[in-house]
Amino acid sequence: MTGPSTARPVSRRGLLTGGALAAGGSLAVAAVLAAARSGEPGVRTGEPVAAARIGEAIEPFHGPRQAGVATEPQAYAAFVALTLRPGTDRAALGRMLRLLTDDAARLTRGRPALADTEPELGLLPARLTVTFGFGPGLYAAAGLDERRPASVAALPSFRVDRLQPRWSGGDLLLQICADDPLTVAHAQRVLVKDSRPFATVRWVQQGFRRGAGVEPGGRTQRNLFGQLDGTANPRPGGPLETAVWVPDGPAWLRESTTLVVRRISMNLETWDLLGRTDRELAVGRRLDTGAPLTGAAEHDVPDFAATGPDGLTVIPDFSHLTRAHVGDDRLKILRRPYNYDGVPTAEGHADSGLIFASYQADVARQFLPIQRRLAERDLLNEWTTPIGSAVFAVPPGCPEGGWIGQQLLG
Amino acid sequence: MTGPSTARPVSRRGLLTGGALAAGGSLAVAAVLAAARSGEPGVRTGEPVAAARIGEAIEPFHGPRQAGVATEPQAYAAFVALTLRPGTDRAALGRMLRLLTDDAARLTRGRPALADTEPELGLLPARLTVTFGFGPGLYAAAGLDERRPASVAALPSFRVDRLQPRWSGGDLLLQICADDPLTVAHAQRVLVKDSRPFATVRWVQQGFRRGAGVEPGGRTQRNLFGQLDGTANPRPGGPLETAVWVPDGPAWLRESTTLVVRRISMNLETWDLLGRTDRELAVGRRLDTGAPLTGAAEHDVPDFAATGPDGLTVIPDFSHLTRAHVGDDRLKILRRPYNYDGVPTAEGHADSGLIFASYQADVARQFLPIQRRLAERDLLNEWTTPIGSAVFAVPPGCPEGGWIGQQLLG
Repeated sequence: MTGPSTARPVSRRGLLTGGALAAGGSLAVAAVLAAARSGEPGVRTGEPVAAARIGEAIEPFHGPRQAGVATEPQAYAAFVALTLRPGTDRAALGRMLRLLTDDAARLTRGRPALADTEPELGLLPARLTVTFGFGPGLYAAAGLDERRPASVAALPSFRVDRLQPRWSGGDLLLQICADDPLTVAHAQRVLVKDSRPFATVRWVQQGFRRGAGVEPGGRTQRNLFGQLDGTANPRPGGPLETAVWVPDGPAWLRESTTLVVRRISMNLETWDLLGRTDRELAVGRRLDTGAPLTGAAEHDVPDFAATGPDGLTVIPDFSHLTRAHVGDDRLKILRRPYNYDGVPTAEGHADSGLIFASYQADVARQFLPIQRRLAERDLLNEWTTPIGSAVFAVPPGCPEGGWIGQQLLG
Repeated sequence: MTGPSTARPVSRRGLLTGGALAAGGSLAVAAVLAAARSGEPGVRTGEPVAAARIGEAIEPFHGPRQAGVATEPQAYAAFVALTLRPGTDRAALGRMLRLLTDDAARLTRGRPALADTEPELGLLPARLTVTFGFGPGLYAAAGLDERRPASVAALPSFRVDRLQPRWSGGDLLLQICADDPLTVAHAQRVLVKDSRPFATVRWVQQGFRRGAGVEPGGRTQRNLFGQLDGTANPRPGGPLETAVWVPDGPAWLRESTTLVVRRISMNLETWDLLGRTDRELAVGRRLDTGAPLTGAAEHDVPDFAATGPDGLTVIPDFSHLTRAHVGDDRLKILRRPYNYDGVPTAEGHADSGLIFASYQADVARQFLPIQRRLAERDLLNEWTTPIGSAVFAVPPGCPEGGWIGQQLLG
């Protein structure tokens, strides 16, 4: 790539005398964009990508469904929740989402955004996905409350909740995931900048899973309690299809889903005081393999009726596994959680936990019954506290040239 | 690996009646440790590691010099600065460093720490390094101030500084780096827990570079301004040796180095208003290739005398490149920086910057002259602000069975 600075006049004196904000930047960016389009490394589409080239791997953005849901989870995520500014109405939302869709479509294929001021940071997508979620406030701002799925609303209060406004709610969610943290940071920066005329930042939650290539693909991730987390997800294929995607209805619902984001603080201090067996009883699974206490391998079907010599069920009735268990594939939820690890206190107490994120076709029918059972009695409640909560509709995807939200707002 | 819970009595009633803090945890951990030692995946040493198995790669901990300095930078870092508690004297420091050295030696080879309560999180080292740094307060606490290298002290104030106590100082530094963020989080947790009897947490700075495998190895990293950062590092081999390591002196100095950690806030808002050419003039290099403005490739030698048609030098005299340039290998510094990206403000202004970390044999002779020139006149000062600063001696390494700091404190 040839540096554009050789091809244009240098506003050098302006820089040296302090008038440094040159207007010519857009020209330089255009040159970089042209170079990017002409096919440099990192700008491939549709080609098979070698495993070692994690940076160049692309998740397709366009399609009937949004990416970032059934997508094999990437290593890093930023969940960015925005509050719409007063006056961001249906027409403004359309402009905003055209712009953000264009940013997402470019960045996810390893091209800088149109007004990208750091275009070199946009060249390695590393499986970047940008997933848009619509909170209740977006429907209200658009004057389209009648099109809001009934369960896209603040969740009912649960006994265990200690929700903080700074981690809760939001009108528009941008879920940004990639296998590289610099890619996530750059995409977040571009999308937040382009959102500024329309919205303010309500909260941002940054999280991580195992890095790409650290464990062989497809393994269930571990959270900071050391547990395997996500074993009970619906299997890819039919079960996942049924659990996650809305199959019919008006255009703004078909191929949509919903997302529940909960920030779950995990008390590592008290968890660490607990013996290993007691941890396994609380979870209902072995910590090492993730197998149910009645089985030998992670995906063995738990036997909730099996009893031990003491006459009690081997898997305690109040274990997390028992309370969260769903037999019917249609009622399962797709969990896609990320760990967070903030700065410990002066006394060395961790600020750690889980950005719980679950996708399901219907919050009321799938998520809420599980959450009610867990809030009522789940041994893990002793060591976990929900401190944030938000619900979003995840509208259908869009074809090339379309924009996310078009079916609802267009 | 067989779950240890089948092999020991279950304190189930205790759990269900609330007396959940079983004493038997150590037995279970011992079983996991035994399994780990018996050679499960992730516990290899000395074997060649396939590129795709990023998680199992090991950086040797033991040796005359500490790892994490000349080590090819890993993708994630946590810099943890501790304040010694009153009463942590020379003897207590010896106990503390024996314990932390043992933790580091185990975790870096993919074995859980001795009292590891989440042993499964310790099995994938992902090139983990733990590097210990001694701040001025450690020497004072040990009653060994006469052994402190003179320039291991708070840096002089610079005109550009806006230092905040919450990012500055520290008696003991733990620099934790790995190619996996979960590995870093787990190591940080173990080390902070084992430090608690001796010290409190002063600050933690978490940073990132490109993920492992995202770019081909050996490339210079980009910071959030989009610049290549670290081009002028001393070349591996002789130049790096001379610049970084203290070759002689008493045992506590030989094979030691020093570390300067500065938190540099980068104002993306005003940087983004700047044209591309003006950015390149401020830096003295092309943004795309990192080449000096008088060259074509990143590592071309800059020609500071070359002038353009306007009669001015092609590389401005006040450019970052000119001011930071060091010709003599012995006076260079080894920069090993990480990006940070916090949560933006409600108005969408970034909280981004650089955890600048440089290694050099002598702070006064190598780092300070560069820093003085930069603080005096560096066009980049317009968009960067140092908000944290700390200096540490990095003592020699230790052989198997030894401990970090033994030459000083033993």
